[in-house]
Amino acid sequence: MCVEKEIFEPVRGKDKCPINSVLEVIGGKWNYKVILRLNDGSKRFGELLECLNGISAKTLTYCLKKLEKKGIVKKTIYPVVPAHVEYELTKKGYELQILFEEMQNWGDKWEN
Amino acid sequence: MCVEKEIFEPVRGKDKCPINSVLEVIGGKWNYKVILRLNDGSKRFGELLECLNGISAKTLTYCLKKLEKKGIVKKTIYPVVPAHVEYELTKKGYELQILFEEMQNWGDKWEN
Repeated sequence: MCVEKEIFEPVRGKDKCPINSVLEVIGGKWNYKVILRLNDGSKRFGELLECLNGISAKTLTYCLKKLEKKGIVKKTIYPVVPAHVEYELTKKGYELQILFEEMQNWGDKWEN
Repeated sequence: MCVEKEIFEPVRGKDKCPINSVLEVIGGKWNYKVILRLNDGSKRFGELLECLNGISAKTLTYCLKKLEKKGIVKKTIYPVVPAHVEYELTKKGYELQILFEEMQNWGDKWEN
């Protein structure tokens, strides 16, 4: 476990702890919701905006950029007019699903 | 999954989504570290302070209060002089371990 392996040393101001890395990806109000929405296939910006109650276009843009930078989401721009852009999960993004299921199990058991 | 069951409606300003509930417990820089430290048995305040590099007494106090309120940590005050206080994980707290292991696996695979 993270603690036993003592890989807690802060590196360049960032914990090297894998758990902290995961929290940086899925933490916050919207990141994990965007990831969950893309779990059933690629979506256009407008589709994401529609199915994420209460998110602003600015926040969604920020989330997608961050997730893209972290290698969780892949953006594809199709060479057509008008422009057609789609977002999908990478393999790295899809592998978060088992985590979400464990979180869901724990949350359902203890918090609802 | 959270998305399919559409239990995303905000309730009293809080998402009812179990994943959000988990992030409220383990999110932030110190919560999950305090939980991990208690994984191998109860500890006194001073012991926790010592083994959590860089945490202040004030922050540790705040974290323990929050985790206690969330039912993750149990505080025991022993009726001796001087006062003897110990903190330990509840069953609810211990059951977060499988989640941390999945996070560790994902983090080790994709972030290190």
